[in-house]
Amino acid sequence: MQISKPSISDLLNSRKPGHSLPAGLYTRDDVFEADMEVFFKNQWINIALDCDVPEPGDTYVVDVGKTSLIVLRDDDNQIRVLHNVCRHRGTRILDPGQHMVAKLVCPYHQWTYELSGDLLHAPRMGKDFDTSCRGLKTVNFVSVGGLIYVCLGDNPPADITSLINAMEDRLAPYDIRNAKIAYQMDIIEDGNWKLTMENNRECYHCAGSHPELCVSFIDFRFDTEYENDEEREIALEQQALYNERTQEWEKAGYSSNVVAQLEHCNTNFRTQRLIIGGAGESQTPDATAASKKLMGTMTRKDLGDVHLWGHNCWNHFMGDHAVTATAIPLSSGKTLVRTKWLVNKDAVEGVDYDLDKLTSVWIATTQQDADLVARSQAGVEDPSYIPGPYSDYTEKELDKFAVWYIDLMKASGY
Amino acid sequence: MQISKPSISDLLNSRKPGHSLPAGLYTRDDVFEADMEVFFKNQWINIALDCDVPEPGDTYVVDVGKTSLIVLRDDDNQIRVLHNVCRHRGTRILDPGQHMVAKLVCPYHQWTYELSGDLLHAPRMGKDFDTSCRGLKTVNFVSVGGLIYVCLGDNPPADITSLINAMEDRLAPYDIRNAKIAYQMDIIEDGNWKLTMENNRECYHCAGSHPELCVSFIDFRFDTEYENDEEREIALEQQALYNERTQEWEKAGYSSNVVAQLEHCNTNFRTQRLIIGGAGESQTPDATAASKKLMGTMTRKDLGDVHLWGHNCWNHFMGDHAVTATAIPLSSGKTLVRTKWLVNKDAVEGVDYDLDKLTSVWIATTQQDADLVARSQAGVEDPSYIPGPYSDYTEKELDKFAVWYIDLMKASGY
Amino acid sequence: MQISKPSISDLLNSRKPGHSLPAGLYTRDDVFEADMEVFFKNQWINIALDCDVPEPGDTYVVDVGKTSLIVLRDDDNQIRVLHNVCRHRGTRILDPGQHMVAKLVCPYHQWTYELSGDLLHAPRMGKDFDTSCRGLKTVNFVSVGGLIYVCLGDNPPADITSLINAMEDRLAPYDIRNAKIAYQMDIIEDGNWKLTMENNRECYHCAGSHPELCVSFIDFRFDTEYENDEEREIALEQQALYNERTQEWEKAGYSSNVVAQLEHCNTNFRTQRLIIGGAGESQTPDATAASKKLMGTMTRKDLGDVHLWGHNCWNHFMGDHAVTATAIPLSSGKTLVRTKWLVNKDAVEGVDYDLDKLTSVWIATTQQDADLVARSQAGVEDPSYIPGPYSDYTEKELDKFAVWYIDLMKASGY
Repeated sequence: MQISKPSISDLLNSRKPGHSLPAGLYTRDDVFEADMEVFFKNQWINIALDCDVPEPGDTYVVDVGKTSLIVLRDDDNQIRVLHNVCRHRGTRILDPGQHMVAKLVCPYHQWTYELSGDLLHAPRMGKDFDTSCRGLKTVNFVSVGGLIYVCLGDNPPADITSLINAMEDRLAPYDIRNAKIAYQMDIIEDGNWKLTMENNRECYHCAGSHPELCVSFIDFRFDTEYENDEEREIALEQQALYNERTQEWEKAGYSSNVVAQLEHCNTNFRTQRLIIGGAGESQTPDATAASKKLMGTMTRKDLGDVHLWGHNCWNHFMGDHAVTATAIPLSSGKTLVRTKWLVNKDAVEGVDYDLDKLTSVWIATTQQDADLVARSQAGVEDPSYIPGPYSDYTEKELDKFAVWYIDLMKASGY
Repeated sequence: MQISKPSISDLLNSRKPGHSLPAGLYTRDDVFEADMEVFFKNQWINIALDCDVPEPGDTYVVDVGKTSLIVLRDDDNQIRVLHNVCRHRGTRILDPGQHMVAKLVCPYHQWTYELSGDLLHAPRMGKDFDTSCRGLKTVNFVSVGGLIYVCLGDNPPADITSLINAMEDRLAPYDIRNAKIAYQMDIIEDGNWKLTMENNRECYHCAGSHPELCVSFIDFRFDTEYENDEEREIALEQQALYNERTQEWEKAGYSSNVVAQLEHCNTNFRTQRLIIGGAGESQTPDATAASKKLMGTMTRKDLGDVHLWGHNCWNHFMGDHAVTATAIPLSSGKTLVRTKWLVNKDAVEGVDYDLDKLTSVWIATTQQDADLVARSQAGVEDPSYIPGPYSDYTEKELDKFAVWYIDLMKASGY
Repeated sequence: MQISKPSISDLLNSRKPGHSLPAGLYTRDDVFEADMEVFFKNQWINIALDCDVPEPGDTYVVDVGKTSLIVLRDDDNQIRVLHNVCRHRGTRILDPGQHMVAKLVCPYHQWTYELSGDLLHAPRMGKDFDTSCRGLKTVNFVSVGGLIYVCLGDNPPADITSLINAMEDRLAPYDIRNAKIAYQMDIIEDGNWKLTMENNRECYHCAGSHPELCVSFIDFRFDTEYENDEEREIALEQQALYNERTQEWEKAGYSSNVVAQLEHCNTNFRTQRLIIGGAGESQTPDATAASKKLMGTMTRKDLGDVHLWGHNCWNHFMGDHAVTATAIPLSSGKTLVRTKWLVNKDAVEGVDYDLDKLTSVWIATTQQDADLVARSQAGVEDPSYIPGPYSDYTEKELDKFAVWYIDLMKASGY
């Protein structure tokens, strides 16, 4: 007797519409490897920001699985993304994190590369040694309004253009490319990356888990059935406010409507300008702006929250600051979530903004989500787990994500 | 060339009678998975006590492998055992350990279950949502004189009745169902669960390793060959004392003889009323009772030690207190041993009993056994290990355990 | 779709001459298991020193993978190497490290063995129990001038004789067999053992990474192309000095020339008497001797550095002290490096030598090398790694090592 396990293909085919995924898709190591190949190598993923490397010579090392990338700004002020692997015997050139360099010098045998990646000098290899084909390997990337997307595979999907078209215009006044990173937080969630993303794609859990966020974040309920009359009234009020603001924003030239590419596509994203609750300005403890200096060329604090998410990121762009987050799978049951808080490049901590006010809502929310994701992972690993039903009202985006996931897996031959 | 490894079936067939098991049965991950299926899913295992949940609304979470169980007492004072997995998206409902609850509420989206497991309310799922078939899954269980046995599989073995028949009567005067848990200790042994059980099934090692236990625990030697005359004399004296006490106890209505079901069975157990050494009352540093209040309805301190073990537990029920232990495998080389010390429900720490006197013998013994099991595991993992001979005098129970293990593995198709 | 991985044989065949190994040979678990079988079981490996057990009854436990070995000195002053696994139920007899014992007594059931390994007594096994075939299993070993080599397999390669022939004579005046271990350091490198050995087989990296070592260690450059005239001049000077000293040493009866067995062999080694830089005496911060008492019967401090390395060790024998190091793989990405500093057996710390002066150069060097090896491991695990070219001038020994490795793997059926 052998305890035989279903193939990945069997798992994909066994998924019941409208239900969470079969356990193995969240828990198995072979699925993790397939996910890394299909979704983190062959799709575009968001891994960094232009403003991670503000000055020429700035480098920023980001790891995606075993792949280590150097994001840098070269002497011509251009962003580049290179593999962090020496062409001699494969040594890591830079340590994780941020550095400032003139050249890229491997610490093992001092092979020295230009910021373009070209090999400048390889000592003691002999005078005949041909350096021309020994540059650091380059990586496909694009900056979408200041968010750096890479594709590690050789055939980057063309439909990234939809994302570019939607976001360049929306992000322009925020000038994310030249923002300042006021704070960064890494948290390792004890869960599969798909549970991390599912958690992010619904606010069904917000009322019960995110008291800090709920001050400013409005969990639109206008497509749900109402638990009671009070809830119904609140929802109708929110809907009216949303409609009114959206009309006004669009009239003023700020694109606000939903743009989404969620099915029959490679590059998965959704953006929408959301209204902010309470004081209406920002995701802070009292919903007022955290920074006196507004983002980029913004002059108004009442332009809501340009919300954008993709299959490994979520972002909120507000008048006074922005919050960006990326998710990088570490194993079938661990996912790194890296959150950054951005302010105007000239904003000064303690003068223009208070760091605690700026960061406290999403620090709390991120920790709460990590706890929920860990509980979910433990549950889907339990042999007694069976996929359960998504709500038709609050979890539609999860169903779309599941469909997109399964379609792309199958399209990749699984 | 491939280093090919034998099948589990080959390993089982290669076991030499009267010898310890082939290494792979203690060390391989595939054997661990098979063990979990055959012995910890499809057999009855001891995982808790009625008195872990003394009051209605008390819950106690126990994990067996990746399976998490909620043991609880409902509003009708009945014990129930439920799977700790929400029927929505599979989230863990309760954290490990003990809680007191009115309902079982999933912290993710507030799906709310009755203590019976029935789904009472699933917010925002829509008015048409059918909650009737979404209750928490239930688990087969039985309380054997206050010891909770579960079977996670669908076909619980019928021969648990022998255990029930043997123990309900013996345990009645101790009233384990209503005892108080004075202390609990978890230790993770660095060894396979079968090494944990082998260690527990012989006292060959006691003299060399358990000085504290040996004050009160008599390692019967009357079926061994004697090392010398002195040992022979001691053994004959012990045998005489055992015979005398057993006769007296049986006459007074206290079942004392050996009842064992060790071969050609599913439910593996052995019970016997043992004599206690020295002062003869209890497994304490001086063998006198640790608690002034006796267990349940007991009026005598001289009724020896009702010893009971199964394939994942061992227990000692004495006049003044009881010690229970369960073993739950965590991996091929790690096993959780959870020990509990029970006293009369009305006994008060510091008044009726001194906690240190109550617990010190088995705290020391448990740590000593953990050390021995870790040494054994390291040894059987060594490529130079070959199964060695069990003693015909002191390790007969280990041979029976090995036979039972192999028989059940084969009966399960391995 | 299955992500199929190449066989080990494919990996071996895909190696490009003059280039570092294909990634899988450094990273895969199945290759690690094959390496342990081919190179750490079936070849001779250096694991200890005679002087680890200076007195009768001294024992020294060394683990190689899951195999635990007892190196001991018996009552007849003879070294023996035994498996640290009781013949009863497989328990580890001794803990890691050094002990002094009269007999080897298993702590589980007190089975008692002579220092020869013979089973003396097995309590309670019965009078008929035959102890004669139950001794601790022995291990093939040989002391090469005081360095203990073992072969765990049944067919130890015969070509160890070349090593013995080369070293017994060279090491005699240093009397390593009776040296004193002044200090020992264990470090776990986060890299495959082959990266550890590659790191040790070139000094291309020394100038950039080992400032302390470079005071005394001369990285001969006379077979390289020179970066500039200054370098050329230095190299020619060193070459002249080396020639002069070697001639003088040989004349005085100290074998100094290169003896190497690196290809078409099982036992891989190279020895050469090297000149020491600066003050010329010893690998210390100022290149002067650290110990006033010289090694063994040495009377001169100017006899250079008898350098010896094999496939799992490197050693430097100098007039005043010696440094020995062994590498033992722990997993595909972890290697234990154990370094020992030896002095004359009568040298007294604080009187004859200062411990910090004695050890500081190689403590620093070892840590620096561990850092480089970890960087290399991270790099070869990166999917973007491709094997790169070895320098024809400074990395020839690495190419020979790669060829030897691949040849032996293939000869073993891979």
